[in-house]
Amino acid sequence: MVHVAILGFGTVGGGVAEVLTNNAAVLSKKVGEEINLKYILDTRDFPGSPFESKLTHNFEDILNDPEVKVVAECIGGATIALEFVKKLLAAGKHVATSNKEMVATHGHELLAIAKAHNVNFFFEASVGGGIPLLRPLACDLAGNETTEVTGILNGTTNYILTEMLEKDAAFETALKEAQAMGYAERNPAADVEGLDACRKVCILSALAFGFHVYPDQVATEGITSITAEDVEAATAAHMKVKLLGRTMRTDDGKVCAFVSPHFVPSASQLYHVDGVFNGIVIRGNAIGEAMLYGPGAGKLPTASAVVGDMVDAVWHLSQRRMLDWDDADPAKMVDFADLPLPYALRTTASKAEVEAKLGQATALPAGYYLLSAPITRRAIEASGLPLLALRPVFQ
Amino acid sequence: MVHVAILGFGTVGGGVAEVLTNNAAVLSKKVGEEINLKYILDTRDFPGSPFESKLTHNFEDILNDPEVKVVAECIGGATIALEFVKKLLAAGKHVATSNKEMVATHGHELLAIAKAHNVNFFFEASVGGGIPLLRPLACDLAGNETTEVTGILNGTTNYILTEMLEKDAAFETALKEAQAMGYAERNPAADVEGLDACRKVCILSALAFGFHVYPDQVATEGITSITAEDVEAATAAHMKVKLLGRTMRTDDGKVCAFVSPHFVPSASQLYHVDGVFNGIVIRGNAIGEAMLYGPGAGKLPTASAVVGDMVDAVWHLSQRRMLDWDDADPAKMVDFADLPLPYALRTTASKAEVEAKLGQATALPAGYYLLSAPITRRAIEASGLPLLALRPVFQ
Repeated sequence: MVHVAILGFGTVGGGVAEVLTNNAAVLSKKVGEEINLKYILDTRDFPGSPFESKLTHNFEDILNDPEVKVVAECIGGATIALEFVKKLLAAGKHVATSNKEMVATHGHELLAIAKAHNVNFFFEASVGGGIPLLRPLACDLAGNETTEVTGILNGTTNYILTEMLEKDAAFETALKEAQAMGYAERNPAADVEGLDACRKVCILSALAFGFHVYPDQVATEGITSITAEDVEAATAAHMKVKLLGRTMRTDDGKVCAFVSPHFVPSASQLYHVDGVFNGIVIRGNAIGEAMLYGPGAGKLPTASAVVGDMVDAVWHLSQRRMLDWDDADPAKMVDFADLPLPYALRTTASKAEVEAKLGQATALPAGYYLLSAPITRRAIEASGLPLLALRPVFQ
Repeated sequence: MVHVAILGFGTVGGGVAEVLTNNAAVLSKKVGEEINLKYILDTRDFPGSPFESKLTHNFEDILNDPEVKVVAECIGGATIALEFVKKLLAAGKHVATSNKEMVATHGHELLAIAKAHNVNFFFEASVGGGIPLLRPLACDLAGNETTEVTGILNGTTNYILTEMLEKDAAFETALKEAQAMGYAERNPAADVEGLDACRKVCILSALAFGFHVYPDQVATEGITSITAEDVEAATAAHMKVKLLGRTMRTDDGKVCAFVSPHFVPSASQLYHVDGVFNGIVIRGNAIGEAMLYGPGAGKLPTASAVVGDMVDAVWHLSQRRMLDWDDADPAKMVDFADLPLPYALRTTASKAEVEAKLGQATALPAGYYLLSAPITRRAIEASGLPLLALRPVFQ
């Protein structure tokens, strides 16, 4: 029997407790022994909860219990959760977390502590919710020189953009709808301004390219500037407006990571990722292109990923599973403004003026032009054309 | 340095050699040490090949070299490859294979030998080519009670069906086109009659449900009976005809595995999997639904999967990675004819006759009817209606 604990009995922590309990039989069979949930840490009481007897208010109960081998961190944030995770790893306990903020900001540091104490630090749930990503990137695709990871990484914004397209709704209306459905927070800034996707891009970058990319190294634009004109122009070009988080290897071996609303053509699998779902395209020099699709959030899908990590930790109690990356290296980063990409731009200028400055272009509705050749954002901005909007096109 | 070998220098074996060589730097970084390709076994000579110096005609060179820890089996078939793999596992060597025939027929036996000798037997490339499936199913999704795995598992037939739809082509014409493009063999029976998909369903069943399902336990129908009328009726219902391999858990905990052409609605991600690509939907009680998409065949994508397995084997040279299933259990299997499914049927009978026998139905072109409620194939066949075609609808 392996004893485990959960930090935080909120949505995700509650889901982890539920999955460990309801799927105990299938878990025992896969793991080879019983997984016993011994403690749940929370500051609150939950009288009447089926897990009431496991609740503790005292972190030391978990930290100092030598029977507890694996801990799921489901508190969130990078203050108390970070302190607890550091202590747990240093005490030789394996940790699985869904905490993207903590991993994006402290992943390198935490992996180093885990390595020093020969324990596992896993975070499958921190990107793409329940979608399998960690082991596909770290292992199944390990033979590849990864060239790009691009994803629809935030279900809230994808839901809003899907509503704007399907119901011809304005951003504010679609946001209110998302809030009413419980898909968006009352303060939706972290989602609609792209911070959530930015953190996930940091984690995907590190997994794909082997060194930490911090949130302030990721050029980030959310969807608050998306208008009906974007939707109209994209639709006319058989594309959809999607918020993409991308990390790309350039020809000289550097990396560019950014979050930006894109025009996505119908030939891409990402075009078909709608509503609250996430989809992540991985490109490598052997696989070509793969896409992983599924629920990017939600109680049970996120718990599915955390429990998968706990299973892997149990399999590797004595031998750490290889998962490492170097610290950040600013010299390896390319400024988003200097990355040549296909672009669609909206301007009050004429087609002749656009083509005189930026080369061949296709006119779309609402003053949009689709440039034929990749070009940098810096070059477009330096052209002097009056720009109303600028959207990379995913290819 | 870890020494490895490849059995078979055909398309896949050549791809594995290429990936190990071209991506040596990225592999060394991920593995933590150099992977050295020491031998390639083939009966042929390859004068002038960059790998000429590594070629041997003698299997014993590999079997008896204690330096060789991991072997990629890329011979195919279940005769000589099976004999070699058994000997390698028994000699304490780890094996990665792309051989679906061998795994579908002897997977349980080979995993037992691997377990007895504390070595890994991996086969990521045997289903879905380069698509990450093995670790997602075995680990990332381990917390789930899996309820269904359904996939477009054969690129050749998917290419043919895509051509039939997009170019309004007859089956024979589309097959000839696929042969001209190199996507179909001169003898296409294994693909178009569903045997290839059947073997992959066996492997997915075992991964998903924990016991071996042999090819003769999988009801298998290919695409040779698909006509323009199927395409017409499916299109009218906003669906596409797709050959699906499925393995499903029934409410009483049994399993039904089958391969059959289906009508797939546009709301499903599988609807958007076209051409030679594969897509696999995984359903579980925590994740809900995920889909994994990518190239289901091809030299480098398949090699990507084999090399991923080799990396995992190197990480687990001394500690076997958990991967096991029980032997087949006929009592746990449900006959495909007894599985209630939504169906579309083609008949010369009238709508009134169809509804009198089978309940509410929607008329489609070409004598097709879409039944409103799930029903068993056995009940439809017992109805006495004159049946021209019967296609399950994916839901």
